[in-house]
Amino acid sequence: MIVTVTLNPSVDEEYLLDEIVLGSWSRANSTLRMPGGRGINVALMLTQLGYSAVAMGFLAGFNGEYIRDALRRANVTTNFVHIQGETRTNVYLSLKNPDEGTSIYEKGPLVDDEARKRFLMNYKRMINRASAVVIGGSLPAGMPKETYKELSLMAKEAGLPVYIDAYGSPFLMALETQPRMAKVPDTQIEHLAGRPVDSLEAYVEAAHKVHEMGIPWSVVSYQVYGDVFATSHGTYLAKMTRDKTQAFLFTARDALVTGMVIADAEGMDTEDSIRFAMACAIESSTHVDRNVKGRASIESYLDKVTLEKLD
Amino acid sequence: MIVTVTLNPSVDEEYLLDEIVLGSWSRANSTLRMPGGRGINVALMLTQLGYSAVAMGFLAGFNGEYIRDALRRANVTTNFVHIQGETRTNVYLSLKNPDEGTSIYEKGPLVDDEARKRFLMNYKRMINRASAVVIGGSLPAGMPKETYKELSLMAKEAGLPVYIDAYGSPFLMALETQPRMAKVPDTQIEHLAGRPVDSLEAYVEAAHKVHEMGIPWSVVSYQVYGDVFATSHGTYLAKMTRDKTQAFLFTARDALVTGMVIADAEGMDTEDSIRFAMACAIESSTHVDRNVKGRASIESYLDKVTLEKLD
Repeated sequence: MIVTVTLNPSVDEEYLLDEIVLGSWSRANSTLRMPGGRGINVALMLTQLGYSAVAMGFLAGFNGEYIRDALRRANVTTNFVHIQGETRTNVYLSLKNPDEGTSIYEKGPLVDDEARKRFLMNYKRMINRASAVVIGGSLPAGMPKETYKELSLMAKEAGLPVYIDAYGSPFLMALETQPRMAKVPDTQIEHLAGRPVDSLEAYVEAAHKVHEMGIPWSVVSYQVYGDVFATSHGTYLAKMTRDKTQAFLFTARDALVTGMVIADAEGMDTEDSIRFAMACAIESSTHVDRNVKGRASIESYLDKVTLEKLD
Repeated sequence: MIVTVTLNPSVDEEYLLDEIVLGSWSRANSTLRMPGGRGINVALMLTQLGYSAVAMGFLAGFNGEYIRDALRRANVTTNFVHIQGETRTNVYLSLKNPDEGTSIYEKGPLVDDEARKRFLMNYKRMINRASAVVIGGSLPAGMPKETYKELSLMAKEAGLPVYIDAYGSPFLMALETQPRMAKVPDTQIEHLAGRPVDSLEAYVEAAHKVHEMGIPWSVVSYQVYGDVFATSHGTYLAKMTRDKTQAFLFTARDALVTGMVIADAEGMDTEDSIRFAMACAIESSTHVDRNVKGRASIESYLDKVTLEKLD
């Protein structure tokens, strides 16, 4: 069983529109409503690919009930601490012209000390039964900056690989615990490279910096359809060849993390791991549903991944 | 007890934002989530003002449960037919610059024949216990254009006054049944006046047309802060004097209908009725919560209403 942690989940509402008319109204052509949050997305995809996953974190109010029900229907085990307030809704307005799409994020409810302690207790219990831990997304108000570091440390002490996709100082502090994989956030690349990110070299430098901290898989997004992987067997630039003009990229990075977790679980070698993770990301970007459509569908994209060894 | 009909309710989500950034994201400063739909808004306000109201219509899915729970917590009696699908969410993006605000409407679920029959059966039963009927908002897919006419007729046959605020041909057809009050939709004014609505006279003409069909209270919005009332005791232009720069007008028209229902129930004369209904609308527009804050608060706005008798 794979533990996924989403401390600040959301109900994601995606409205597909022809256009937004400021000062007036628009009719949505269609709407998708689904549980959201990085760890939750990974838990859903792992389950779709035959792995058992548990989603942990905090849920509140009516939106919280919606998320719990939707995850259970999708056969994801849920282990959330229920708190006061209301789990946030994130609104995604997807326009015909994808460059004009926009999203509105809520802050989410406050986590108090008691809820935090209950979560840590549950987490401690779950990692004794788990084979890996995925930590994703933002920290809700009330959770200390050290939280991801603490969670990663607990998992490592239990002998589990940790996969982290987060932001800011909570992410950087977690790196000190040497997780198995870190997806470096775009906002951190410049800081890590120590220079403007105007060339592939700067991205590679950022990936190297993280890898050299003792993190086996350091992944940095490069432009929209590429990723730099700094690994113990060399540095790779992986790119996806795109068939279609419209790509749905919301959960591509969650699919990539999902792919890495599975590649490790199945003992794939470095290049096969990268190819599989990238194929997960491509597959997830080919349809508007925020998930993957099964192993066969992912494997059909393996030959759309180009791999270039940089060192 | 006052029956309110909302055949296509919504969960209204209002996001208060500094600005919308197309192609990027924004953080909501705060969010309001509430049951929505014209009849539902009237039911909530009537209840807040000490009248007992029942909300009828169709609800579906998780949003439907949310609406039912929220209404019950607000002491509104609920009598909805539950149908397949999901009650729609309407998203309101309220920006610092109110002229740039925008809303996104969903279509809502389809009503099938069986659900329609069940609703009519429930409605028939309820109007035998009611003192008035309020019909508001749009018709969901699957409901015939004649629906409001049918509902109005049934209520009139039971001896009840009918208040209607709706659109298009369902509204026009309902007028044939001579409801007690009709709030003429903006989109119909030009058609009713038979000429461009570039002057107060055109608005008055539209109000007269509807009044002459045998409708005691014909109300037409005039510019943003005024209304023309064509009544059996003459035609009035009512305006509100505004104190503040920001007004929240989402439910002002529902507050106006609420005020008319109460004015009738309490036997107010024509001018007092108009003043009271306008004061309800003003009061509701002074705060971001979509309701009214009680009778005393409404009455404090009575002297902000200016009434001009046109004939």
